[in-house]
Amino acid sequence: MSLPDSQQASNTADEGITRALARYLVTSRPGDLPENVRAHGICSFVNWLGCAVGGSRHPAVDIAYAALSPFAGAEQAALLGRNTRTDIITAALLNGIASHVFDFDDTHLKTVIHPAGPVASAIMALSEFRGISGADFIHALVLGIETECRIGNAVYPDHYDIGWHITGTAGVFGAAAAVGKLLALDEQQMVWALGLAASQPVGLREMFGTMTKSFHPGRAAQNGLTAALLAAKGYTSSEQGIEAKRGWANVTSTHRNLAEITGGLGERHESLLNTFKPFACGIVIHPVIDGCIQLRSEYALQADEIDGIELRVHPLVLELTGKRTPKTGLDGKFSVYHSAAVAVIQGRAGEAQYSDASVRDEHTIGLRDRVNAVIDPSLDSDAAHIVIRLHNGQRLEKHVDHAIGSAAKPMTRQDLNTKFTDLVAPILGQDRTAILLRACWDVESCRNMAELSAMTQEGGR
Amino acid sequence: MSLPDSQQASNTADEGITRALARYLVTSRPGDLPENVRAHGICSFVNWLGCAVGGSRHPAVDIAYAALSPFAGAEQAALLGRNTRTDIITAALLNGIASHVFDFDDTHLKTVIHPAGPVASAIMALSEFRGISGADFIHALVLGIETECRIGNAVYPDHYDIGWHITGTAGVFGAAAAVGKLLALDEQQMVWALGLAASQPVGLREMFGTMTKSFHPGRAAQNGLTAALLAAKGYTSSEQGIEAKRGWANVTSTHRNLAEITGGLGERHESLLNTFKPFACGIVIHPVIDGCIQLRSEYALQADEIDGIELRVHPLVLELTGKRTPKTGLDGKFSVYHSAAVAVIQGRAGEAQYSDASVRDEHTIGLRDRVNAVIDPSLDSDAAHIVIRLHNGQRLEKHVDHAIGSAAKPMTRQDLNTKFTDLVAPILGQDRTAILLRACWDVESCRNMAELSAMTQEGGR
Repeated sequence: MSLPDSQQASNTADEGITRALARYLVTSRPGDLPENVRAHGICSFVNWLGCAVGGSRHPAVDIAYAALSPFAGAEQAALLGRNTRTDIITAALLNGIASHVFDFDDTHLKTVIHPAGPVASAIMALSEFRGISGADFIHALVLGIETECRIGNAVYPDHYDIGWHITGTAGVFGAAAAVGKLLALDEQQMVWALGLAASQPVGLREMFGTMTKSFHPGRAAQNGLTAALLAAKGYTSSEQGIEAKRGWANVTSTHRNLAEITGGLGERHESLLNTFKPFACGIVIHPVIDGCIQLRSEYALQADEIDGIELRVHPLVLELTGKRTPKTGLDGKFSVYHSAAVAVIQGRAGEAQYSDASVRDEHTIGLRDRVNAVIDPSLDSDAAHIVIRLHNGQRLEKHVDHAIGSAAKPMTRQDLNTKFTDLVAPILGQDRTAILLRACWDVESCRNMAELSAMTQEGGR
Repeated sequence: MSLPDSQQASNTADEGITRALARYLVTSRPGDLPENVRAHGICSFVNWLGCAVGGSRHPAVDIAYAALSPFAGAEQAALLGRNTRTDIITAALLNGIASHVFDFDDTHLKTVIHPAGPVASAIMALSEFRGISGADFIHALVLGIETECRIGNAVYPDHYDIGWHITGTAGVFGAAAAVGKLLALDEQQMVWALGLAASQPVGLREMFGTMTKSFHPGRAAQNGLTAALLAAKGYTSSEQGIEAKRGWANVTSTHRNLAEITGGLGERHESLLNTFKPFACGIVIHPVIDGCIQLRSEYALQADEIDGIELRVHPLVLELTGKRTPKTGLDGKFSVYHSAAVAVIQGRAGEAQYSDASVRDEHTIGLRDRVNAVIDPSLDSDAAHIVIRLHNGQRLEKHVDHAIGSAAKPMTRQDLNTKFTDLVAPILGQDRTAILLRACWDVESCRNMAELSAMTQEGGR
């Protein structure tokens, strides 16, 4: 947020940012995206769909559906993973909530935006309704992610420090851009869509820990979708929604660097920096879990041969996830002790390992109580050092420099498959999950996205 | 917007503001409101309904309906003044746009909030759907206006100076409070509804001059309605959505005085300060129009006997409304010259006097070109001095201390009737307009608001 006479606001270089972005979006063709950018977009899609189906039975989704379905329209789009269809605007909200409710979706680490939720939730519903192809879908998804991450870069960290949940506030632009692309908006319409998006930021960090957090990407999807639908019919808005003196960037952030939005558009691909969480908990514990799983595999460890586990961790780990005796599954996500225990016992840390039953399991509690952690300020945030002492006197050691899932050591396709299966199989069963997963990787050859979304529903395939 | 360590944010007196407001809202009974507060609420309703019906055929409403109706739900609520019904969430948006699109709706002058749009648009739709009585409707309307104006007071002027369109950002709370009241939320649910509202501010001032400006109160109505519907089913949110360190007030304003929200709740009634515009243009020209109409009436003036009109005005008048040769009706709203001319010739300055035809009328242009204005910094913003020189040498003079419609000289019931009729009769005809107007004044004896909203539609009565 600036004073009216802010230098930034009057910087002539910022003039036309919204229009330049709009021009890029409307002129981009699928073939303009390099192969690796499209491939990474497919990874974002696979990861998002797994999270959305996995979260589809969460109480937050049940409640939102019960509250809003009496006012919903025709059966135009699937509630992914549920045996229900609704209008595309309502579907965008509910699928957006589902995809974020486990806090297991993707992360653009530079801005902590979870990019896919707002964008994919909006365009999945639209694509099903309009019979859009998978190739066009992935193209729009990549453009949407590119848009929101670049706008996020322009205002991060000040915008986030003030208290905005940047996934919702920047996400609106991503959704508007992607929907606008699929609606084939012209440049003027896209400018208006971005202006309408600018007027609808969603999300305060104060809401973290409540259902309203996952409401944010869902509502951002709806707002962006609505913005593009209105603009397509000629609903007018500002020409400088992002950069104007009283536009989005100046109003919602103390500092901004708007060159981040348009610099090297089409050449530098911010969407490539999207990452995927291997574990269903805060990212700071990931190095510990990674190391524990590696030691378990290498030594075929059993919990009852372990005398104790000693962790050296980045200071943030104990600040954010130092709960010694978690009471609920959600608590477990904030316990490095529980996380290390399930990693050693089960070799994974997915949503199932953060159930209420899991944190109350006697065997897990027994090992958890033998985990100790000390901070080591010399460690990077994606590093950890693990020592496991066995009853037989053996001492097993693992140093993790970069946890799996970090930018330096991204999830492999096999890792994404395992995560997807863990999330989706409890909903659809193993067989249908495997078929859906293959179809997701093959999305660019899908002629009509309605076929793919039907596969997430009972009776769909 | 504050730094994280803001003194204000850590002020313990602010703790519990959201809950204290929620408690007031859920415990208030219609009989708790003094008679004059209820009566003023009815004035707000009459003024809002006239604006909503009057604006119902504007292109902004046509476009929004065309864009969104393919996704809308069942026919639950009227699009006021149109022969169409839709689901209540869509109706809230479209009626909200219609009610603001002429910039002719109500004004809380302390904050420049237009209070009725977000609140009445939300509860009119809900009340029709649920068969709510007029007495309960007016009670909820007053509580909603009270809520948004108090929250506005807490952050004005900084919040507005930054660039937020306060009608949309504070209006969400008003809509959530009023809908929550009609849904009979308990205290905890109302806290959540306010939290969900806090996460959905709408509207940047950058959008002024485009259709997105009138989108703001409509979307605020939808956001507040959605917030209350979700909370009613148990969708959780923050307990301190307004006052928390990263809550709404700290995130969206540099300074705030949260005591404005709860101080004297139920005793001091901010809703009494709501005012109604007599003229369909920026409020700064109102003293000139008022004085011209008075001189016209007192002397039965004819344009062709006038040699010239000399105005002394507050400096803002020429800064904001100094257009000498307006080209369109909208331009005319920013021309003190056109406004003075139509006031003398027609004795009014309603929407009809700001049509394209009106600004191009030869007779009007002839007089407009004989109007001159000079600024006088000693004048208050609701004052003006008018001198009309006649060809016969006579010099007519009028000093306006407080324009009609200002807090010091409010519109009379007769003034509101004239305004309502001017707005509504072109849509519904004189006879149905007169019947509707009587029903509006008698709203507290209406058993079911569906009867009243049906009267705004063809075939309704």
